[in-house]
Amino acid sequence: MIEGHGDDTYRYRDIRSDFSSNICAHGSHQGLLNHLAAHPELTDHYPEPEAWSLERMLADRHGIDSRQVIVTSGATEAIYLIAQTFRMNAMIPEPTFSEYADACMMYNLPCTMYNFRDGKQTSAHPSSLIPATVPCGSPQGLLWLCNPNNPTGEVYDTQYIEKVTTEHELVVTDQSYSNYTEASIMSPQQGCRMRNVIQIHSMTKDYGVPGLRLGYITAHERLTEQIRQHIRPWSVSSLAIEAGKYLLQHDELICRPDLHEAQRLRERLCQIETIEVMPTQTNFMLCRQEHHTTAELKEYLANEHHILIRDASNFKGLTPHHFRIASQTAEENDALVKAIRQFIEVRDKRGCGKIAAHKKGTKGNTANGTL
Amino acid sequence: MIEGHGDDTYRYRDIRSDFSSNICAHGSHQGLLNHLAAHPELTDHYPEPEAWSLERMLADRHGIDSRQVIVTSGATEAIYLIAQTFRMNAMIPEPTFSEYADACMMYNLPCTMYNFRDGKQTSAHPSSLIPATVPCGSPQGLLWLCNPNNPTGEVYDTQYIEKVTTEHELVVTDQSYSNYTEASIMSPQQGCRMRNVIQIHSMTKDYGVPGLRLGYITAHERLTEQIRQHIRPWSVSSLAIEAGKYLLQHDELICRPDLHEAQRLRERLCQIETIEVMPTQTNFMLCRQEHHTTAELKEYLANEHHILIRDASNFKGLTPHHFRIASQTAEENDALVKAIRQFIEVRDKRGCGKIAAHKKGTKGNTANGTL
Repeated sequence: MIEGHGDDTYRYRDIRSDFSSNICAHGSHQGLLNHLAAHPELTDHYPEPEAWSLERMLADRHGIDSRQVIVTSGATEAIYLIAQTFRMNAMIPEPTFSEYADACMMYNLPCTMYNFRDGKQTSAHPSSLIPATVPCGSPQGLLWLCNPNNPTGEVYDTQYIEKVTTEHELVVTDQSYSNYTEASIMSPQQGCRMRNVIQIHSMTKDYGVPGLRLGYITAHERLTEQIRQHIRPWSVSSLAIEAGKYLLQHDELICRPDLHEAQRLRERLCQIETIEVMPTQTNFMLCRQEHHTTAELKEYLANEHHILIRDASNFKGLTPHHFRIASQTAEENDALVKAIRQFIEVRDKRGCGKIAAHKKGTKGNTANGTL
Repeated sequence: MIEGHGDDTYRYRDIRSDFSSNICAHGSHQGLLNHLAAHPELTDHYPEPEAWSLERMLADRHGIDSRQVIVTSGATEAIYLIAQTFRMNAMIPEPTFSEYADACMMYNLPCTMYNFRDGKQTSAHPSSLIPATVPCGSPQGLLWLCNPNNPTGEVYDTQYIEKVTTEHELVVTDQSYSNYTEASIMSPQQGCRMRNVIQIHSMTKDYGVPGLRLGYITAHERLTEQIRQHIRPWSVSSLAIEAGKYLLQHDELICRPDLHEAQRLRERLCQIETIEVMPTQTNFMLCRQEHHTTAELKEYLANEHHILIRDASNFKGLTPHHFRIASQTAEENDALVKAIRQFIEVRDKRGCGKIAAHKKGTKGNTANGTL
């Protein structure tokens, strides 16, 4: 998917608070940029065809073998590489990051979406290839799990991961947000010991540097060997490789989101009667407003308050009323809550027939429900 | 192919003259690096999912529509994207850049290699899928042309390109080295008017910045529309996009190889009796030495003279005696010629039975021909 992701500040003028990207607030990267500027050889020579030197450093960091690491141009390249390598039926709980399904579709892989809570199948691509029901108990193909899950902020614990590895041929856990939770997440060392788990990691998210494009895969070498057959030379730039090495030597730059502040934001949002916020174990959270569409709310916040939120209506399984926000500073969070309250007030005043409605069972109480 | 490309300075200590990369000598990129360092937002935000802003600038530069431009993470990503999009029989004249065949093999595309001079088929992948002879006169699938051709330095003129477009369903011309010749090469504007030509361009080569990874495709929108279905979001980093914009505003940084000096180097090399150098229209040239292997020559030059050359034996259709060099400064070129002369002298003295042999028809005049 090219359009419809978060962090689309490039579409708006003068955004001052960006709640649309899950990447947590962090310090300056001026030191990193100065370091890169001090190395003119980074532009003048080809990078290593594969980022071996950075792979060795990552292996040391995690206590695994460098054959078990593949550096990629962002976690997104990792997702597409895995779909390209393992041409299996895919199972994807929804809502989740859209690129898993998009990558499967690009390689024409049969792909079943299901609701994580009740296990019911919700859709399939391409529809003709999928049996209407999935036989229980028999090993399934490839299960994609985002852990912590984007956009909900839920975490699958190690016990759950171990259980699903017995039920699926291959389990991919995208751990891009593993630093964004205090819940326990399977380590690369644990993952590499299992023969059917592939972990995706994001230096983008670990260090708050989404502009760089830097991610990596860790897995048992029987899996990385297969994936390596599908990488193309020089897919990671010299600047990104050097940046990765620099970041690994600067632990103080690791993102540590303020999860306490995130919970405070969630509680404040929950106090707005027509807003529902899912429980989260990270800094970002999924919200649903009952009466107005996110498209309206997003435009209002951007134009009137210079605030950007993530329209979550294009996550499969969600509705035009869903949006996602990532907690910022207490001041920014308070400004967001205030701006959302104003939006609801202004809209309700405009004579759309809105009356403060109680949270449950109010759907359809107005003919203009999606205005 | 991950290993076996040029510019492998990372394998050796203390290389002082690098003849292995075709990228021409150029001025400093400190201005570019300082420009990037002055923009901390480049690391802190996601890039545009597709590099639209740079695509618009490139379209303006070439007088074409921005729909006709796709920016890629180096020309290599363009090659793999094209192979992924157009699943056709491929025809590849050899010797040429190995990534065309590698990209076709990655997507299991039937791929016929042929000798450009006599048109004879030389090999096929996967062999079982290819008819032994290709029927003459019938339109063939996808023809890959590197123009100017790597490693030979030959140029296909516009007339030739127009002719082959009538004989093939699709013609891809990789014009990465178009700035490296004074011969006439088809412009993006001409290419976009044709409905079955795809041109690949390399900002890496135009500006001598291989560490950045920045290339682009231009073609009629009926073709770019199909390719766009296969791009993944954020494949080009913010740093690379901003660098591309900066470079387009700094024409003084465009590489202008000294083709006169390249011809002088060629003439000097031709004076060595056991070295054959193909005619070239660019700054790089393909050489063959009669008696010794390139592997030996390369190690000798690297270890004894801190000079790096490109072992060309892994180009399909070439032999262990082929190597490629790109002309450097007159001083460096003279040092290379002297070092090659020394290598031959030392080897011949070692009692391998070498006697100065005349250039033609000397193959096999010694039992130790490949020492």
